[in-house]
Amino acid sequence: MNAETTSELMNRLGQQAKAASALMARASAARKVAALRALAALLRANIEPLQIDNALDLERARAAGLSEPMVDRLKLTPKVIETCAEGCEQLAAMPDIIGEILGMKQQPSGIRVGQMRVPIGVFGMIFESRPNVTIEAASLSIKSGNACILRGGSEAIESNKALAKLVQQALEEAGLPANAVQLVPTTDREAVGQLITMPQYVDVIIPRGGKGLIERISRDAKVPVIKHLDGNCHTYVDDPCDIAMAVKVADNAKTQKYSPCNATESLLVARGVASEFLPKIGAIYAQKGVEMRCCPVSKAILSQVPGAQLKDATEQDWSEEYLAAIISVKVVAGVDEAIAHINRYSSGHTEAILTTDHRHAQQFLREVDSSSVMVNASTRFADGFEYGLGAEIGISTDKFHARGPVGVEGLTSLKYVVLGEGEVRG
Amino acid sequence: MNAETTSELMNRLGQQAKAASALMARASAARKVAALRALAALLRANIEPLQIDNALDLERARAAGLSEPMVDRLKLTPKVIETCAEGCEQLAAMPDIIGEILGMKQQPSGIRVGQMRVPIGVFGMIFESRPNVTIEAASLSIKSGNACILRGGSEAIESNKALAKLVQQALEEAGLPANAVQLVPTTDREAVGQLITMPQYVDVIIPRGGKGLIERISRDAKVPVIKHLDGNCHTYVDDPCDIAMAVKVADNAKTQKYSPCNATESLLVARGVASEFLPKIGAIYAQKGVEMRCCPVSKAILSQVPGAQLKDATEQDWSEEYLAAIISVKVVAGVDEAIAHINRYSSGHTEAILTTDHRHAQQFLREVDSSSVMVNASTRFADGFEYGLGAEIGISTDKFHARGPVGVEGLTSLKYVVLGEGEVRG
Repeated sequence: MNAETTSELMNRLGQQAKAASALMARASAARKVAALRALAALLRANIEPLQIDNALDLERARAAGLSEPMVDRLKLTPKVIETCAEGCEQLAAMPDIIGEILGMKQQPSGIRVGQMRVPIGVFGMIFESRPNVTIEAASLSIKSGNACILRGGSEAIESNKALAKLVQQALEEAGLPANAVQLVPTTDREAVGQLITMPQYVDVIIPRGGKGLIERISRDAKVPVIKHLDGNCHTYVDDPCDIAMAVKVADNAKTQKYSPCNATESLLVARGVASEFLPKIGAIYAQKGVEMRCCPVSKAILSQVPGAQLKDATEQDWSEEYLAAIISVKVVAGVDEAIAHINRYSSGHTEAILTTDHRHAQQFLREVDSSSVMVNASTRFADGFEYGLGAEIGISTDKFHARGPVGVEGLTSLKYVVLGEGEVRG
Repeated sequence: MNAETTSELMNRLGQQAKAASALMARASAARKVAALRALAALLRANIEPLQIDNALDLERARAAGLSEPMVDRLKLTPKVIETCAEGCEQLAAMPDIIGEILGMKQQPSGIRVGQMRVPIGVFGMIFESRPNVTIEAASLSIKSGNACILRGGSEAIESNKALAKLVQQALEEAGLPANAVQLVPTTDREAVGQLITMPQYVDVIIPRGGKGLIERISRDAKVPVIKHLDGNCHTYVDDPCDIAMAVKVADNAKTQKYSPCNATESLLVARGVASEFLPKIGAIYAQKGVEMRCCPVSKAILSQVPGAQLKDATEQDWSEEYLAAIISVKVVAGVDEAIAHINRYSSGHTEAILTTDHRHAQQFLREVDSSSVMVNASTRFADGFEYGLGAEIGISTDKFHARGPVGVEGLTSLKYVVLGEGEVRG
């Protein structure tokens, strides 16, 4: 017997996913709930076996000289596994939106026209490191009635295989096709090239990882891509605003965690409140070791703050996603300049205005062209869980199809349904 | 002064469109209505000048040896112009959906999260022959708060220029940027290649024309494409059904007009009603000169019909979009086989079941994977106007973003809006 080539493998996975997707699309809500609950139970019952497989990845990672923070991201600790199980249960508890009919209205001809929410079909997901993404993607795929083909990072292959096996077991226990969730079992790079160029089997690709990976995939894919590039998020402190609240929110938006894509990377401050606001936030950032890259006006004010680490901002700083203890700071004339600056330099992820002026808030909400626009809240809230989506498969910075955190709804499509009583066109 | 190259031209149009789109996005509903009404008035006031420019295209077309039906498609008759004007007025009268906020709900953190409908930004439209598409696209673009770049067929360039000039005049009269609707003023083919590869300026491309054009554009575009390929539409006559209604609807679906994409191209008939239904519809098709390409069972029944033009269907016939007085006919066991056949051969445009069985109707609605699925209605209804969308810019057979007739809503995007009172993430 000849070994299966990567091309044959991907073709087989594609065919199997397509066949499974037809069964998933008509699966009852109850079966999908049963599969998610079975998966939660299997995860909890298999903590030790999962950790044994996970140890193989960790060993290989350490042998390859990965840094300890990178090794940490690969770890399937009991806590990580429990969080995955809880995520499945939360999705199970959410209402099933497949089959809902929106906006049914009778037309002058007599026909009634509405839109029915249906699964997209098959999605391919490409991700790096953290193996828990396997469970997040699988559970969202099940809830949304899709089939999926998952391609994880080579550094987590043993962990991902072990998790995918549990997913398939849960699907079978619930009477659903095991092939509704398939993991690409090879680390061959050619498999990715195949996955993103099979429009006959795969309806959409969701890459999750570094900017380079996502740009490469977007360029080469022959199917739509739900993509998330940078998160160069802005917090704009307006005049007028509640200074105490602005300090609290601007602090949280930058320092609650430095690595997430929804952390604020650029602070814009209205001229009228700069001399009051900047020394207060500057003292906090200085104390927490946050470097400030400043425009001349903000630098002049912040230079009075003891211990502040200040640099002159370059043009490049306005576009930068630091993912670190660095923030760019700019004083602007007011809301108009803030919006213009954001629409020029932002990556379209998340922006917030901190204000007490109703008209400024409305203008900011309407005119800022980003996937999430906030009033008086920390940009760190831009997240599927915080938005009540139950889970997210990524955050889309595109305007097309899904925008912002992508949960179950972003994995669905609306088709028109028409109910008649024998109407014909005149 | 050096002449502008095509590349410089397209870059300039792109920049201008992008700048105009920011102004259109914040334009009031009243101004957009004023522009649409002004356009309707300008069209009616300029019937004669439009016909003079149109005559240049007609002359060139006849000189180039175009067939008279093709020349007809180019004609700006007073009736065509009046229909365009009425279309603008209908759009003006529809509610403005930009800025509407959907699903605002408070989350456990205290923030309220919803989605705001906003324009996509800039769309590029590529179309052939009929110059009235210029007005349809322009009016939908204005209503949806987008900017657009229109590239019509070379055969209608003078008519399109004259129409675009009126559109820009109407925009200016309403205090909106004239560059919100721009026509590519050259027939240079390189312009299309540029238009579909400017992601920095153009958010989405909508091609309207032959299958070859659409496939080429989908392959080469660097931005999302709202595309419409074939309309291989099916009508399935179920057992049980109201035979008289089924005959009336199957007749209309095929013969009311042969050229539209929503005409039925394939007739599936449940075995249990075939011997009663087929002779009745066969007699009508025979009388109207519709050729029937049959499976063996249907051919045996239809061969009793006097004057019926029958052929044996080939495998290719099940996938064919005839756009002519031809229909393929197949007898199937029942609703399961009908759905399987449709999901295998259909182009995903529009399918109808004619039935009196509630469960069959529900199953068909749920399981048929096409952009419009109908019960007891003619497939000819699949149309933006008949669906109450006011107008359509095309019919999408994709599952992604817009599916089915694309009106104002398909040209919009939903961004998340978050309203807080100083909440921070814990």
